[in-house]
Amino acid sequence: MAGKEPVIITDKEEMRKWTRTMRSLNHTIGFVPTMGYLHEGHLSLVQEAQKHTDLIVVSIYVNPGQFSPNEDLSTYPSDFQGDIQKLKSVANGVDVVFHPKNLYDYGNSEMGLIRSAERINEKENEGLKVLSCVEDKGMGHETWVRVENLEKGLCGKSRPVFFRGVATIVTKLFNIVEPDVAVFGKKDYQQWRIIQRMVRDLDFGIKVIGSDIVREHDGLAMSSRNVKLSPEDRQKALSISRALSKAKVEAGKGQVNCGELINSAIQIIDEADGRVDYAEIVEQESLEPVETIKRPVVFCVAAWFGKVRLVDNMEINI
Amino acid sequence: MAGKEPVIITDKEEMRKWTRTMRSLNHTIGFVPTMGYLHEGHLSLVQEAQKHTDLIVVSIYVNPGQFSPNEDLSTYPSDFQGDIQKLKSVANGVDVVFHPKNLYDYGNSEMGLIRSAERINEKENEGLKVLSCVEDKGMGHETWVRVENLEKGLCGKSRPVFFRGVATIVTKLFNIVEPDVAVFGKKDYQQWRIIQRMVRDLDFGIKVIGSDIVREHDGLAMSSRNVKLSPEDRQKALSISRALSKAKVEAGKGQVNCGELINSAIQIIDEADGRVDYAEIVEQESLEPVETIKRPVVFCVAAWFGKVRLVDNMEINI
Repeated sequence: MAGKEPVIITDKEEMRKWTRTMRSLNHTIGFVPTMGYLHEGHLSLVQEAQKHTDLIVVSIYVNPGQFSPNEDLSTYPSDFQGDIQKLKSVANGVDVVFHPKNLYDYGNSEMGLIRSAERINEKENEGLKVLSCVEDKGMGHETWVRVENLEKGLCGKSRPVFFRGVATIVTKLFNIVEPDVAVFGKKDYQQWRIIQRMVRDLDFGIKVIGSDIVREHDGLAMSSRNVKLSPEDRQKALSISRALSKAKVEAGKGQVNCGELINSAIQIIDEADGRVDYAEIVEQESLEPVETIKRPVVFCVAAWFGKVRLVDNMEINI
Repeated sequence: MAGKEPVIITDKEEMRKWTRTMRSLNHTIGFVPTMGYLHEGHLSLVQEAQKHTDLIVVSIYVNPGQFSPNEDLSTYPSDFQGDIQKLKSVANGVDVVFHPKNLYDYGNSEMGLIRSAERINEKENEGLKVLSCVEDKGMGHETWVRVENLEKGLCGKSRPVFFRGVATIVTKLFNIVEPDVAVFGKKDYQQWRIIQRMVRDLDFGIKVIGSDIVREHDGLAMSSRNVKLSPEDRQKALSISRALSKAKVEAGKGQVNCGELINSAIQIIDEADGRVDYAEIVEQESLEPVETIKRPVVFCVAAWFGKVRLVDNMEINI
């Protein structure tokens, strides 16, 4: 059964009004935030949301606040019409696609613009690396949400502005969409845990759900960035899921020494010409590194293949 | 006309449910966050809120997140029953008093507790001063909202955790109370501007209103902390409003040199035995220091009298 045609909303006040009207009619709203270029993984998040609420909002917005000026914001893939077709292909479809133009344009920020530019120089002088494309473009936005401990490890080490940008844009989207339930993919495991903690700590009236990774038939975790891999790198990138699966099997057989599991995984990715950014076995909630597996953990990996950085992970529940 | 008896709500889920029920019945909700020990200034905020919405929520909660461990959290004055009586004395009264016990107790934070204690040591080693009573007591809360530029000057210099704590608790309260309008006193001018900016940057669906300072008959700006002044210091503290009024008169007569206006004000407070923390003339929105008055500014002062730190300010609209 083909899904319905979603209403496309670009204005944030209109978006909030839609939710409030629906809520007053006793509907519940599920929300799936995305950066577009949708794949089966995103569609599985929609299907997960459908289990919890009767109305579904999907946002499509590439957030400059989570990219450093030297990252791939300008080349991030997009295909809005294709995205709409994919959302229509989901049974029961989605009700609204929220597709704002610029969530950092407040229309009255001339003063913010000037000050922001000055502050960038100050921050550079202070040697701070927490500068995103929002500050780089002098948008005058200066409020940021930080989950101070969880943001530090894993991807936070090599992408210092990333989780600050994610937590902030998700706060903005939550305040605009005002959903009852929000679904995040466990593919971005640290992001999911950060949002979960943020929702608890800031008392959002929203239930956060983590949805399992969807993989290609050969094991590659689905990602919008996969399209940027050359055919050779696409093949080499399989080493990540292969390494994680092997670790999970070994752990199942009784190997609880994380150092050995990690070395073995790094070797597999190295041999496939991948450049490992990190490979860590961490506790599932705190994301603190674990030396010996005694309770459920998650093995998280980030690695470069050519110019593409991929992340993947596998929960080991022993 | 005596106001009605407010409903007292202590549970955050119950609070949110009340708002949503009222909103579905087409009511609008005004919100006045306070730390209790109410005075005429607070009551004027309630009256301001009544102009904008038909229902009023007042929160009474002393927020540990905005106090440093070495500040006056434990001696902050409180009188809950007296506060209720004062709120009842306002014409048309208030509908709900939200009086939570501990907004940082999430019930499931054993892991957070442990990690938080470790992080405190780490932060102390890093020489960071952004440690509030929340971290000091190991409550496991780790998400903070920061308005990065506006929080730096004025009170931010001597109270490095203060505005981080204020922005975060106001976010929490906004997410729990979900009001349409929130009223803040301009007595805490920097706080008001920070909340205004935060609401814009994080897309809260809330209108923020700044309400004028209420003064005692002799000019002292009303504050819950005034009760802690000795009779002698209470008299000396009048030097702040006297200094500000004089500056305003002089500016009205054409004195636009901020350095001279500031020196004159500091001298008046000094002569009254006050210890000036800061005295600055700043632009009203950006709070950037101004050298020559060319457009509306605000003269902000913080000074100690005995063990009590008072803040006051005066807008100079020339």
